[in-house]
Amino acid sequence: METPEVLIDRRLLDANIARMAAATAGAGIGLRPHAKTHKVLEIARSQLAAGAMGLTVATVGEAEVFVADGASDVLIAYPLWATPEIGRRLQALAERATITVGVDSPEGAANLAQHLGASASRIEAWVEVDSGHHRSGVRPGSVDEDRMADGTDLRLTGVFTFPGHGYLPGQARAAAMHEGEALSAVAARLRAAGHDIRHASGGSSPSVAFSSPVHVTEVRPGVYALGDAQQLELGRCGWDDIALSVAATVVSRRASSRELIANAGSKVLGSDRPSWASGYGRVLGAPDGCVTALSEHHATVRWPDSGDMPALGEQIRLIPNHVCLTMNLVDEVAVVEDDAVVDRWVVAARGRNR
Amino acid sequence: METPEVLIDRRLLDANIARMAAATAGAGIGLRPHAKTHKVLEIARSQLAAGAMGLTVATVGEAEVFVADGASDVLIAYPLWATPEIGRRLQALAERATITVGVDSPEGAANLAQHLGASASRIEAWVEVDSGHHRSGVRPGSVDEDRMADGTDLRLTGVFTFPGHGYLPGQARAAAMHEGEALSAVAARLRAAGHDIRHASGGSSPSVAFSSPVHVTEVRPGVYALGDAQQLELGRCGWDDIALSVAATVVSRRASSRELIANAGSKVLGSDRPSWASGYGRVLGAPDGCVTALSEHHATVRWPDSGDMPALGEQIRLIPNHVCLTMNLVDEVAVVEDDAVVDRWVVAARGRNR
Repeated sequence: METPEVLIDRRLLDANIARMAAATAGAGIGLRPHAKTHKVLEIARSQLAAGAMGLTVATVGEAEVFVADGASDVLIAYPLWATPEIGRRLQALAERATITVGVDSPEGAANLAQHLGASASRIEAWVEVDSGHHRSGVRPGSVDEDRMADGTDLRLTGVFTFPGHGYLPGQARAAAMHEGEALSAVAARLRAAGHDIRHASGGSSPSVAFSSPVHVTEVRPGVYALGDAQQLELGRCGWDDIALSVAATVVSRRASSRELIANAGSKVLGSDRPSWASGYGRVLGAPDGCVTALSEHHATVRWPDSGDMPALGEQIRLIPNHVCLTMNLVDEVAVVEDDAVVDRWVVAARGRNR
Repeated sequence: METPEVLIDRRLLDANIARMAAATAGAGIGLRPHAKTHKVLEIARSQLAAGAMGLTVATVGEAEVFVADGASDVLIAYPLWATPEIGRRLQALAERATITVGVDSPEGAANLAQHLGASASRIEAWVEVDSGHHRSGVRPGSVDEDRMADGTDLRLTGVFTFPGHGYLPGQARAAAMHEGEALSAVAARLRAAGHDIRHASGGSSPSVAFSSPVHVTEVRPGVYALGDAQQLELGRCGWDDIALSVAATVVSRRASSRELIANAGSKVLGSDRPSWASGYGRVLGAPDGCVTALSEHHATVRWPDSGDMPALGEQIRLIPNHVCLTMNLVDEVAVVEDDAVVDRWVVAARGRNR
């Protein structure tokens, strides 16, 4: 196999998709997977076939890719600032599918309504809520909630939040609690202002197991389908659930310090590294190994003290910290079963940043 | 302008290219720019027209892109582990250009010679030296130097190093000193073993100003052409030298904490963040601003305490920490002069990881 190469184990992928579908169905919560994680048509189709109610994306460009493939219900979970071009593209999407967009300010809502023109009433708008991650979103109790969408034709029909502060060890349960409280508080205030709020969307791969049907109607995890070193180190998936790895070749080694250099760097693994992570990634089959440094085309791997170190020219499999970045760095992935390549998938929405 | 969009200011780019060409010529050192930084044919042509002796790349795939465009002298500055396919591709490249590859182990040299077959003598091999960055490369004084390429037809004609430990505040001069000492030591030992070592290649954008013609025949800086927040914070370029920025739109804001959310995240800026950096990037025109957090499609920007914060919908320009990652994340860039888009360039070697 030529390296570096992104491998997706189809059976593990299918198992991850089925398990999340069953868990959310069992909890009485809808599942709207975030397709920015994988950007692959075949994976989105599997998620929908397994019962997902629709898809989540981050950009209009991603929505276009999945709607063109037949997705009928897509949430762009982002507080879009519309331009004339964005307005035209959203109108075209709304001709073909149920499209929902995020808003988090009255100014943003007015801007969106202006560029949607007569189509404004065809698109649903959900208010983004800041449940503790402190990125975008309105804070519960802010005055913005009361005047959101005033004087526009936008239909506010839901609330959503990304409980990203659950991406810390031990914080997922608390983040899910904040998610529920914040969504319910903002939804109540929007209803009091006369809006028909029917959707409350939460969830992220770490926190989704703790989302409550009392507070959310649906969840939007993404990484769960593939798994990565962050989920592993947060305890949100096991070694046997990791469906994506990057095959790399040992090109240099220093036996004295148990270090290998493999030919996969930040340009295929991505360089996200949260402060609590053990390093820049992990090694499939060597649980005590760690990617201790990353250049553009080099991973420095600290090999465990016991056991034989791979020889020069041997292939190893690295687990990226954040799989969403890895998928965005390649045009295609190899699909494997029992270590044999059985298919190749195009990363159809790669690079669709706008 | 639709955002996020990568902008390259052509005049600043040209000035950076001319300044480095003049500085290296003045120092009597050859310049072989690293094209992995930009991956753009038009930029490589400008560098060669300004006097660069050849190009540096990181992968066989990058070499193919630039050789197809007419580059006649390309160094693949990487300890390649050859496969039959890599061997064939190198042979095809060697038909059209002078191709040099890196080796850092006798095993790697033997592997390369095996897969090059009768073409081995047509390709030059340079020994990679570890001058203190402790990534790949032989350490001066190791036994490997003496038996490198023994029993193969590979022609060892040079040594090269990446003094990457110069990517720390105040360490560039020391790294350049280590570079010179290590290259000279390994070159001497290889000459003693009978090899005709004629090239010694060093340099990186931070350290290149301190490289010595006593020790190096050429240098391989890459980032200097575009500039980024790392070079800025290391004091290796000024604000007025930054030729690349990412236009982004303010989609959310919190005036109380002087924070903005802009629609450019790690999927366009890249998420490299060295420990000494102020954050995940800087803001053009707001020297006291900082990107304090980065998600895939959100940059959290701390705006300076004084001065008006940009309004919702306004565009700002972010400076990524590491421009090599940004260029690898987009298919095209907008070329600007006096803030007007005058051209678009394709990132021809984007994603060429192998």
